[in-house]
Amino acid sequence: MPGPESLFTEGSTLQVAWGDGHRSIFDAVWLRDNCPCPECRHESGQRLLDSVAIPDDLALTSAHQDDGSIVAAFTDGHESRFDPAWLRAQLEGAPPRRTLWDASLELPVERFDAVAPGGDALRRWLAAVDELGFAILTGGPIESGTVTRVAELFGYVRETNYGRLFDVRSVVDPTNLAYTGLALGAHSDNPYRDPTPTLQLLHCLSSSAGGGENTLVDAFRVAQDLDPEGFELLARRPLRFRYRDDDTELEAEHPVLSLDARGELQAVHFNTRSAAPSPDLPREWYDAYRMFGRMLGAPEYQIRFMLDPGDLFIVDNLRVLHGRTGYTEAGDRHLQGCYADRDGLRSRLAVLRRETIDELFRTFRERGHGAYLGEPVSIVEHSLQTAHLAEQDGAHPTLVAAALLHDYGHLIHDLPEDSAEHGVDTAHEDVAHAFLARHFGPEVVEPIRLHVAAKRYLCAVDPLYLSELSPASLLSLELQGGPYGEQEVAEFERSPHAEDAVRLRRYDDAGKVSGAATPDLEHFRPALEAAAR
Amino acid sequence: MPGPESLFTEGSTLQVAWGDGHRSIFDAVWLRDNCPCPECRHESGQRLLDSVAIPDDLALTSAHQDDGSIVAAFTDGHESRFDPAWLRAQLEGAPPRRTLWDASLELPVERFDAVAPGGDALRRWLAAVDELGFAILTGGPIESGTVTRVAELFGYVRETNYGRLFDVRSVVDPTNLAYTGLALGAHSDNPYRDPTPTLQLLHCLSSSAGGGENTLVDAFRVAQDLDPEGFELLARRPLRFRYRDDDTELEAEHPVLSLDARGELQAVHFNTRSAAPSPDLPREWYDAYRMFGRMLGAPEYQIRFMLDPGDLFIVDNLRVLHGRTGYTEAGDRHLQGCYADRDGLRSRLAVLRRETIDELFRTFRERGHGAYLGEPVSIVEHSLQTAHLAEQDGAHPTLVAAALLHDYGHLIHDLPEDSAEHGVDTAHEDVAHAFLARHFGPEVVEPIRLHVAAKRYLCAVDPLYLSELSPASLLSLELQGGPYGEQEVAEFERSPHAEDAVRLRRYDDAGKVSGAATPDLEHFRPALEAAAR
Repeated sequence: MPGPESLFTEGSTLQVAWGDGHRSIFDAVWLRDNCPCPECRHESGQRLLDSVAIPDDLALTSAHQDDGSIVAAFTDGHESRFDPAWLRAQLEGAPPRRTLWDASLELPVERFDAVAPGGDALRRWLAAVDELGFAILTGGPIESGTVTRVAELFGYVRETNYGRLFDVRSVVDPTNLAYTGLALGAHSDNPYRDPTPTLQLLHCLSSSAGGGENTLVDAFRVAQDLDPEGFELLARRPLRFRYRDDDTELEAEHPVLSLDARGELQAVHFNTRSAAPSPDLPREWYDAYRMFGRMLGAPEYQIRFMLDPGDLFIVDNLRVLHGRTGYTEAGDRHLQGCYADRDGLRSRLAVLRRETIDELFRTFRERGHGAYLGEPVSIVEHSLQTAHLAEQDGAHPTLVAAALLHDYGHLIHDLPEDSAEHGVDTAHEDVAHAFLARHFGPEVVEPIRLHVAAKRYLCAVDPLYLSELSPASLLSLELQGGPYGEQEVAEFERSPHAEDAVRLRRYDDAGKVSGAATPDLEHFRPALEAAAR
Repeated sequence: MPGPESLFTEGSTLQVAWGDGHRSIFDAVWLRDNCPCPECRHESGQRLLDSVAIPDDLALTSAHQDDGSIVAAFTDGHESRFDPAWLRAQLEGAPPRRTLWDASLELPVERFDAVAPGGDALRRWLAAVDELGFAILTGGPIESGTVTRVAELFGYVRETNYGRLFDVRSVVDPTNLAYTGLALGAHSDNPYRDPTPTLQLLHCLSSSAGGGENTLVDAFRVAQDLDPEGFELLARRPLRFRYRDDDTELEAEHPVLSLDARGELQAVHFNTRSAAPSPDLPREWYDAYRMFGRMLGAPEYQIRFMLDPGDLFIVDNLRVLHGRTGYTEAGDRHLQGCYADRDGLRSRLAVLRRETIDELFRTFRERGHGAYLGEPVSIVEHSLQTAHLAEQDGAHPTLVAAALLHDYGHLIHDLPEDSAEHGVDTAHEDVAHAFLARHFGPEVVEPIRLHVAAKRYLCAVDPLYLSELSPASLLSLELQGGPYGEQEVAEFERSPHAEDAVRLRRYDDAGKVSGAATPDLEHFRPALEAAAR
């Protein structure tokens, strides 16, 4: 994130011009409400200031930069100091993590043994649920109760009238069609509940019956293809859902497509078994409803897979609908299910991501203070300078993250730091790539993987660049293969990440100034958080 | 509910003219989708028919009445039989149970000992939560864990990162301002969660600290008084909420006022401690936000009460905001809280109401077959005839319920059935009133209470009425005090329920035909359910 170039107050607002040409406007009330001083904000991070008591006519009396902070003074006599990077981050918003899919999706699968201890595999598995709305786990125990054990890896079981967990198998006198061998079309579970469970897990204990394949469909993807009139009808008319048995009487209303305050799709509720539509719904609504239902069952959208005993899947019940093909009641098909909620899952995922960043920082602190390949700075100093240059240049958080991490490979391979002098290319960019690809997307890891290629590229196309390389960098250039030839140049330029790799290369080359002032590692946490996939 | 007078098909619709002059239109697709035959509807009540497969061009080929049913034949070859009362009930919809309140509200309080065994007191307590959005329970155990025990009386605890239950008291290094002695303004709990917990319970274990009064405000009531522009801004712009500690990172977006698909207020999220507003929000939004916050704290809306050790309250966390006054950290104030959800509560309430109706029916079946005060019908026959006449007359479900139950007092007092002949007025209408008032609102119980008064009234104002009374009714008239005088007539007419009482009286008088055909008791369950408060 770039620093502020200039700032001034106008009316009740603070206007900031950033280094990358962006301009932003912050209202005095918003600034006052977000004052980070200990009087206004508790150490827990919660707001102490009573937002409600901010005077209606609050304005700024002055604003200036001081020691890397933006200092704003208000007409109520209060003065606040803001970190410019924090202010800038508030404008960016969280990147959308949702990827819509159809039948061509490659199934997101992890092994139970890898996921159960927590760590990277659990993070990947939870990230798939967050991004795709479901994930599969194979090779788990074939033991009753496994399903709640898996839910407890990341969150909390939502107990209902069906219990903490429920058995899905054919029974005599079923109270629910799930407990028969009938095929079930794509559906949301428990739409008659308020709030609807946001996650469902199903774990297979036995699958010797013929049939009983599981089906999943991304209802958000399907809704995208609805005609706009149909979409509107399904979003604007509520549908009642009902369930009752001897001990239970549940009823709730949801539109088939729920929109959020922005008018964007937020939840899908579709279940022909428990729908109790009002006769007031027009024929056109019914037409859209059945059209949506047919699309939900269409092979181009639907994925099918068989659970073996021990396998499990989890779905985001407000987005991905599940179903099953019918099965013969002669064999045995026995699943156990439970409900849980998205907040627990997303919290666990965020904490696992936070821990990844903690680990990166710890490695920098513990191993980054050695000399950097003959340059007059340590690796951690060089990394901070490179990231700082990226931020000053207005680079996107993913490129700032790449800048900070581009030499991370030096810290995690086990070769001595002077290896270039001994004629060894440590291929540090490949080491870093493999490690970082577990945590970051291609926007971060591709510029890193290409940052040495970018050097060879620049040496080929920019004679001035070649002439200005430091002696250590010239030495390593030779080991890296020397300047690119014509064909290699053309090939490099075809990479979608070539431009970022070149930008990264230039920050890299400039970030070797002994004693240059930079922010500390923690300053870059928001960029890493935004960049972590 | 009145029977159909006539019906005909037009285009793809069935049109029904009811006895009370209402006309309704049912689309062929809706009718087909709601066919109750065992092929289309499972005995569990779930739909077997695949709604999605209904042909687009489905129409009716014919419709007629047969043996009290409406029979519809469709172009797909299927034929369905509908109970007219069921069809009519689908048009009515559930009555709104919500009553908005301000500071003048009388607190809904029950005793723990009465509520804990279940039954009437529990039903009343849950009905208060459903209607008012909160209720208080006094005199509970001063024992840790009581709060989850109370939640389990009606539903399921929602476990979160705070545990199944959490302790609210001052601690050193609090991670949440709730764990300090600070005053807390009216707020929603956990708005940074998705889904937000819909119910919160707080149980007092100790309250020796100075201060720490509890405050509650009906945010739906307050929202009603917002200016329309402010309401719109708070409904259309999402607000982010955040919480984090060492193990948790929660973030969710909700508008302050969430609207449902109909555009009606569905939920309020307000919490100045965890709000993380975007700088994009315009000053006008902030103005509306602070205005709403000020109104939430205004004494005309807010109720205050002190919990003694053992006391507990429950709030609907999406409607009623809670807070507390500050307290001295010298004494001890210790609450335990937990979260739960509305679906469990409403299910329990519906089942308790169902059990009430079961009990009424059981009493009819067990005690209603005796002779009815010298008339040629039993009490149960008379009750069914009276209710059937009300239904045929197009009476509202509350009056149908009153008609069915008007002589219920005869079944539950312990006097012999021929008491009138022995000169005893059993005041059956008062007995019934006291019993039924526990289950039904004034629209049901007042016409019942007044149905004898209505007889004395009619005898005064309608000489023909007097002349047509049966001998048994004439005998009881004398015991009841004879026809009203002029002043009594005027007084009677002032009652808001006089008209219904007179209508009930006329059904009552006509419902004494030996051997007349009526529907059975179960037929009237929907009317009783709709009428039960």
